[in-house]
Order: sequence, then structure tokens, then C-alpha cells
Amino acid sequence: MATDRHQARRSRLVAAVKKAQLDLLIVSHPPNVTYLTGFTGDASCLLIGPKRTLMVSDSRFETQLADECPGLATEIRTAKTQTADFLAEILGKLGFKRIGFESAYTTVAAKDGLEEKATGIELTPSSGLVEELRQIKDSEEITAIRDAIYLAERGYSVLRALLLPEMTEREAAHELEHAMRRFGALKAAFEPIIGVGPQAALPHYRAGLRRLDEAPFFLIDWGAVEPGGYHSDLTRMVATSKIPPKLDKLHRVVMNARQAALDAIHPGVACQQVDATARKVIEDAGFGKYFGHGLGHGIGLEIHESVRFSPISKDTLQPGMVLTVEPGIYLPGFGGVRLEDDVLITRDGYEVLSSVPLEL
Amino acid sequence: MATDRHQARRSRLVAAVKKAQLDLLIVSHPPNVTYLTGFTGDASCLLIGPKRTLMVSDSRFETQLADECPGLATEIRTAKTQTADFLAEILGKLGFKRIGFESAYTTVAAKDGLEEKATGIELTPSSGLVEELRQIKDSEEITAIRDAIYLAERGYSVLRALLLPEMTEREAAHELEHAMRRFGALKAAFEPIIGVGPQAALPHYRAGLRRLDEAPFFLIDWGAVEPGGYHSDLTRMVATSKIPPKLDKLHRVVMNARQAALDAIHPGVACQQVDATARKVIEDAGFGKYFGHGLGHGIGLEIHESVRFSPISKDTLQPGMVLTVEPGIYLPGFGGVRLEDDVLITRDGYEVLSSVPLEL
Repeated sequence: MATDRHQARRSRLVAAVKKAQLDLLIVSHPPNVTYLTGFTGDASCLLIGPKRTLMVSDSRFETQLADECPGLATEIRTAKTQTADFLAEILGKLGFKRIGFESAYTTVAAKDGLEEKATGIELTPSSGLVEELRQIKDSEEITAIRDAIYLAERGYSVLRALLLPEMTEREAAHELEHAMRRFGALKAAFEPIIGVGPQAALPHYRAGLRRLDEAPFFLIDWGAVEPGGYHSDLTRMVATSKIPPKLDKLHRVVMNARQAALDAIHPGVACQQVDATARKVIEDAGFGKYFGHGLGHGIGLEIHESVRFSPISKDTLQPGMVLTVEPGIYLPGFGGVRLEDDVLITRDGYEVLSSVPLEL
Repeated sequence: MATDRHQARRSRLVAAVKKAQLDLLIVSHPPNVTYLTGFTGDASCLLIGPKRTLMVSDSRFETQLADECPGLATEIRTAKTQTADFLAEILGKLGFKRIGFESAYTTVAAKDGLEEKATGIELTPSSGLVEELRQIKDSEEITAIRDAIYLAERGYSVLRALLLPEMTEREAAHELEHAMRRFGALKAAFEPIIGVGPQAALPHYRAGLRRLDEAPFFLIDWGAVEPGGYHSDLTRMVATSKIPPKLDKLHRVVMNARQAALDAIHPGVACQQVDATARKVIEDAGFGKYFGHGLGHGIGLEIHESVRFSPISKDTLQPGMVLTVEPGIYLPGFGGVRLEDDVLITRDGYEVLSSVPLEL
């Protein structure tokens, strides 16, 4: 409930709203609302601009808003009014003209509904204003991400202690989530990916009904959400019997790609460059076409957020960014190897925030 | 993988698409795609119309699509093409003009992106076409919902056996989800609501850090998702020490409202009428203003779906619909009572699918 912190973020956003020549921005994406206000509920939006800041919510959240956002002006809708009518009425009273909305998170139906009811306003698509602020984490956010990593790592230790050959991928995923929650996680950061053998080659596999002893290794990609809503995201390979030489080879290449990426990380470096550095290691080893995704992504209040390590990224590293570094090689039919860590960009380089051993 | 069943659903949808004077509908809402094809992944859409049916997905899902939707025509995007470009190119090749899209699930950014790239087409907002088909459940869907209820009820029994006075709401919610998963649930149908004492009066409360022994009772609202994706949704009141007379009174009123609602349920009856019948019992007992939500909602591949029991519902009951019946009374500062069951509309009345005892 660090109100000053949220106030400072809102001030920075107001400057961006002004610069975008908007009178007001309707912030409706829940992680953006949380970032700006500390409010952890949903179905609410923040109207923010140089002249007014106002939270629009409904009676279900009245108590929670008073607790979480003391001092923030609010308008509370009752069950008798429709959302669009209520918002249109408020916008009408405020009397502003150029109103931005988050086009990547607003449905066509919601926008059309508001446009129909609100007169005299110009609804203008906007994108990335809050996401850009969220790229740089402050010290409290970094502490929260460290906590989320700690919860993920503690859960992983419990899972390793619980492993049985006959356990299915899905059972293992459920034990992992339960363990992370015991240590205080709100939930898993996403449905854990646990892929035995060939399943590890499917980048979008979740956790199915294969037994852990159906192949000599599995891939595990998991994370935790700490109580404040921040995420962690890790991947490791676990050998369950004699390590196949091919796996060992892939693992070494991925380890080298990871280290090359880390060595390239420094404030001011293009994210594209870091991706290219890791990719070259994998290409030089002859596996270039088996690394089909970007090298990493920002984490924070969402599991994937602004700032990417990828061949088409336009981002530049700055101190305070936290990204995953996750090179991988996926051989159809055999399996895949990915190693993923969470990395903080510091003033003079980087800090790997995660500490699970990398060995097979 | 009952392909015939999905084919039949697609035929019914094609008739609706024709009736809406569209050449093609882009179905992108994942539960709608699952309903029409059996595909359980995401980020994919089904193009469907009188002349062509085509699944558009990306390489991550290629294997899964072949497994889950044998015989369905597909177009697979690789990582080199952007989604909007790929879809625009396919639409261009198909050469149709009036293209509907699901306006309640399509963001303004996605629609604008497609519109910019696809030429010669008329993007037309559409809503509810698939949702309307999903209102009536077939026998396999009803079996799946029965399974989801069974999983929720088994999990609840385990939670009751595990209860300790010092357990927090959140710990109880986590034990409940873990127990449901042990029996085979994919996950909880939603973050369980467990509210001790006064928290039970907050309809949007989840599960926080209150200890179960902080008040003589708690409210628990929970459900499970079975492996096929169908949901259950139940609410019960649990007394943890001597029952306060006021709680007992509210509980009796809610029991009566529930029974009155069930007695009113029959095919052909207006949903509004069923809501009004239950509401009158609560109003007559003097608690009308403390029942602020609708009486119930459809369940299926989503936890809230089309067909509502509410004062503004326009729906009429038909055999095969499955809805929650969940009257409640919420007294600020004291607590709330809600009882929720899942009810199948049958040819000659109804069947309550859930069987957890209603007593405190």
C-alpha cells in the first residue's frame, strides 16, 4: 500500500498522456491498473490525465478500493447501471474531448458500446503508455520478483523430493503448484510445462498424462506469483536415468548460448544483439533451425511483458529491467533442451536472480 | 475426439452464419473454438461459412491439431509471419466479402490490424452465434458436467476432513484445489471463494489471510474443471462453532428461496420468472436489498456462459440447459449466506446435479 509510489507512477503517466495529446486515458488492463494504483481487483478502470484522475469501479469492490487505494477519487457503479452507460455518463460530466483507450485490451464490443453512449468525445486508440513505464522495475518490484523466484525454487525442491517414476507430468505439475503455495505463493505463474522425452520438444506442451519414467529426462518450465502479483519464470532439464549422449550435447550447447547471452548483457545494448549472440552459438553448433522462439521476455505483474530479446526486438537494455534468458533447442521426436533464468539489468551489467543448479 | 459431434455443431453454426448474411465467421474465442472442433489449444481461430471451413493456427499447435481434429482443414503459420498478415493473406485467397468476427472477444488493435492488411473484405461485428448453440448441452456434455461436479464434491470432502481452526482461507482454498486435482480435475473452475464471517458478505471476496476460527462460520464457493474442460460451480455454508441465530435465520430464508426457484423451473418458463420467484421469498422475509446479484448463470466450457437467471434476463428455459441456482443474502459487517447448485433442465422439469448436503 505504498501510495506515494503509485502517485509517482501516475505522475509519470500523466506526462506521457499529455505528450500523446490526450485529455484523458482510460486504463482498463488490470495489471496496468494495479501498477498505477495498488488495486488488486478487476473489472475497474482508471481515468487519468493532466486535469483529473478517477477510479471507476462497482459496488463489489468498494471496500477493497478504500483499503488498497486510500485517497484515490472513485466513482462506484451499482448493479442497476450498465458499465458502458456509467462510464459514458462520467466522461460526459468531465467534459474532456480526446479520450485514449488501451486498444490492445479493449474489445470492439466494449469500444462500440461506449462510443454509442458517450457523445462529444473522440475515442482514440492508444497502446504501450503504461507498459513502457512498467519496463523499469523499482527496488520494491525487484524484491517482489526475487520473492517470486524464491517461491518457485522452494517449490521445485519439494517436487524433486517427491518425484516417483510412476508420477505423470500432470501430477508433478500439481504437486509443484501446491508446494509453491505452501511457501506463500498465490498460484503458479502459469500452468507448469512438464514434458517427458519427446514432449520436451513441443514448446507449447503443458503437462499431460505421460509417466516421468517413459523417457530418461524431462523439461520443466514453471514459476510462482508472490502475494503482490509479481511473477517468476524458470526452466530446467531433469535427468531421471542414464543421460543420453545426444541430450548431454544439446545441454552443453544451450549452456554455452546462455553464457554468451549473459556476457552480452549490459545497459545500452540492443536486445536484438543479445538474442543474436545466443542464437549464433546455437547456429554454429548446427541447431539454428531448432531454436524457433525469441531468447527472452520481460517479467513483472505479467508473465510476459514489454521488452523482448528477439530477432525483431527494438528494445535497448536499461538498468532495472528484468527479463528471462531462455535459449532452447527442440529436436522433433527426440526432445528439447531449454534453460531459463530471470536476469536483472544492473548499472554495470546484470545479476542472475535465479539460483537453481543448471546441471542435468 | 468425437469428430461427428463437432461436425454436427459446425453444420448448425453454418446455418446461423448464413442467416446472419455472412460469407464467413472468424471464431476466435477459445471455448467457442473448442466447442466446434475439439481443439484444446489457444491462439487459433476457425474460419467457418457455407462454402469453407478452415482452422488457422501456428506451428506450435501443428501436432496437437492433427491429434485432436483429424480431417479438419488447417493453415499453419510459422514464426516468420505475423498473425494479422497471415490471416489477411488467407482471407484474400478465399475471396469472400462479408466476414463476421466475434466483437465481444476481439480487441480493437486486432481488428484494426486485420482491417489494415486485408483488402476487399467487410469486417462485420457479430456476437452470440456460437454461444447460443452452447446453451443446450448434449448427453456427453452433461456427463462431463456431472464429472466436474463429482470432482468438486470429492475435493470438498477432503477439505472438510483436513480443516483446522488455525488454517487461513487461502490455505483452505489451496488444499481444496490440490484435492480436486488428485481426483483428476485439471484445475479449480475459478479461484475458490472462502470467506470467514463478515468476509462472506463480500460477493467478490476470494480467499485471504483470515483464520477459519475468527468467526463461527464461513462461506465456500468453488468448482472443478474436468479433463474435457467443463466446469462445476457450488456454494455452501460451513459452521465451525455454535451457529448464531441470525445465521440460522438467513440460511432458512435462502433454503426457501432455493426451493421456490427449483419448483418454478420447467421448460418454457422465462428465466426472469424463476429469478423473480426466488427473489420474492427473500424480499418477503425483509432481505430484498441484500440480494444484489442474479439468481444464476449457465455453466459449461466456461464458468459463466449464456443463459441467465436475472431480473433482466430474456432467456427461456429449454431441456438440456445447465444453470446454477444461487440465491444469497449479504449483511454488511455480519456475513452472507449463499447456497449454489448446478441444475439440469429436463423435459419435464429439472434435476439437481449436485449433492452436497445443504445443512450448516
